[in-house]
Amino acid sequence: MGGKPTIADVARAAGVSKGLVSFALNDRPGVAPATKRRILAAADELGFRPSVQGRSLSTRLAYSVGLVLARDADLVAADPFYPPFLAGAERVLVAAGRTLTLSVLDRDRDEEAHYRALVADRRVDGVIVGDLRPADPRLPLLAELGLPAVTLGRTGDPRFPAVSVDDAKGVAETARHLLTLGHRRIAMVAGPRDLVHGARRADAFRAALAAAGLEPVAVVETDFTPLAAARATSDLLAAGERPTAVVYGNDVAAAAGISVIRGHGLGVPEDIAVCGFDDAEIAQWTVPSLTTVSTGPARWGAAAAEALLDLLAGERVEDRDLEPARLVVRDSTGVVPRTTRAQDQDQERTT
Amino acid sequence: MGGKPTIADVARAAGVSKGLVSFALNDRPGVAPATKRRILAAADELGFRPSVQGRSLSTRLAYSVGLVLARDADLVAADPFYPPFLAGAERVLVAAGRTLTLSVLDRDRDEEAHYRALVADRRVDGVIVGDLRPADPRLPLLAELGLPAVTLGRTGDPRFPAVSVDDAKGVAETARHLLTLGHRRIAMVAGPRDLVHGARRADAFRAALAAAGLEPVAVVETDFTPLAAARATSDLLAAGERPTAVVYGNDVAAAAGISVIRGHGLGVPEDIAVCGFDDAEIAQWTVPSLTTVSTGPARWGAAAAEALLDLLAGERVEDRDLEPARLVVRDSTGVVPRTTRAQDQDQERTT
Repeated sequence: MGGKPTIADVARAAGVSKGLVSFALNDRPGVAPATKRRILAAADELGFRPSVQGRSLSTRLAYSVGLVLARDADLVAADPFYPPFLAGAERVLVAAGRTLTLSVLDRDRDEEAHYRALVADRRVDGVIVGDLRPADPRLPLLAELGLPAVTLGRTGDPRFPAVSVDDAKGVAETARHLLTLGHRRIAMVAGPRDLVHGARRADAFRAALAAAGLEPVAVVETDFTPLAAARATSDLLAAGERPTAVVYGNDVAAAAGISVIRGHGLGVPEDIAVCGFDDAEIAQWTVPSLTTVSTGPARWGAAAAEALLDLLAGERVEDRDLEPARLVVRDSTGVVPRTTRAQDQDQERTT
Repeated sequence: MGGKPTIADVARAAGVSKGLVSFALNDRPGVAPATKRRILAAADELGFRPSVQGRSLSTRLAYSVGLVLARDADLVAADPFYPPFLAGAERVLVAAGRTLTLSVLDRDRDEEAHYRALVADRRVDGVIVGDLRPADPRLPLLAELGLPAVTLGRTGDPRFPAVSVDDAKGVAETARHLLTLGHRRIAMVAGPRDLVHGARRADAFRAALAAAGLEPVAVVETDFTPLAAARATSDLLAAGERPTAVVYGNDVAAAAGISVIRGHGLGVPEDIAVCGFDDAEIAQWTVPSLTTVSTGPARWGAAAAEALLDLLAGERVEDRDLEPARLVVRDSTGVVPRTTRAQDQDQERTT
């Protein structure tokens, strides 16, 4: 072998990727101890000395992982899920000497070009894929680009490990909680059906009511914004069969719902019970405090980052299921008002 | 000149930086039309042909700008300022083919090493510096590293252009609004004094009251979290001289304040007026809706990104002042209760 040994020589000798050699030599976490020993032994044997300046160029690592949110930027700003999710992911990434490369873009116009640029410019070593869509076009694209990825939720695509929280379980628990309190006229102000989780939660809600022989008063599809939730609530209050309980797609949407309900001179929970989703910080501080569903977004962000780092370190990563979403009962849900219950029973008798 | 012309040759011929040549050749925005024509003419004359694959390596551009938040990750998650700020910045960056590299880290332990790694690994071309501290140690570090930067607010350091929103004006307007409504016993639940904006807002509040010959009932320093705001509110309610108005450091903190005040059987604004800060989405949906101060975080994020892109394109960037923060009056502030006003007058007569 002529000339100075390169990182490629070490990789060949140790039977690992060049990226993993760089990880081991730079003391970055995520390399199994036995593998690390093998790499260091190979480097030693070959007399390899890494050049610190050339570190990033020689291995061409970006030391960053990507999160591309293909949504309207305002919608990202209004969504209480992402701040704690990002915080959880950041904690893991910073500890591993990595950063998060965040992009918020228009999905129809820019998405494919953006992923191609991320790879061409070596801006990221891998990506976290959220806001999954049915038959998500990003999966074949990422496979073509050879970009390692983990998905938030299962896709059925065996090429990408999923880090999942069963949110349907939380929605079903919410429906059962309301049924137990005597509610029979329950509406949902849901997210968009063209997001997998929007559709899945609406379906879980319908299924839980169906198990009790009921149908929802309404399932209103919105874009997840509080403004849309406020409008949907006004419509529900104006309708003939007013619901006694409304389940919202997120906590800020639920806060908007409470505001509209109280603006109509009705009480929460005395006249209408309200449930949120996400258990965001604000859920503790609305008046009344919100019954909601905790998905543990910070923990989810940390787990997604860990799975991606493991993948980048050359490990085989299986699908990981976190603790399912769970109902958090606070003050915005109570027993259905007696007068309403009497009406329900009258209706049941006559039908 | 022997061999194939390089990007450095084009830069020399056109009298610009290599980075600017790359910008012009890759059709990235931010290059003045005249400069672009000069660069293209020079490239043409030399017979320079850029290699697409080598693009990022040859110019060593990261195509990403950094935002390093040196705070507890939970605090970032709870702060309503950053989501719309990031959304505004993203809109500009995506249009310019850039991404945002976000890091959230412990400032005492990791900060300097992290900036050094960002530069060593070429992860960012420049950074936005927020959460300014008095005599901020990041400024000499950034100067040493030669990393282009814009600061959110003025630092007095001529090396870094500032993109500023005068938040003190918004705080002063809030104080005057409460004084006009007849309030005399006003408290502030403020942010930490070791952040420049935390101290500046508390000082502006004191100054506005002083101009009316008053002192605040209390200025409680908190870490900006809603939990700390809730605790501070409980203490204020338990104190001998209960305030008739409380000004909070952000809108989620104000929501927490409303929750605690109402939990004590008091009304907002009938018994205690409440003001927030930021005009976050939630401010429209608390009950009552929040009187608050709008800093236009989305516009601020966009302006900071634009200034940094201009700087990276080789332009000379002066300090930029955006529209000052302004008071947004909603339902959480009203005239001071008559009984309290009578007490005040009694006190004034006896003192």
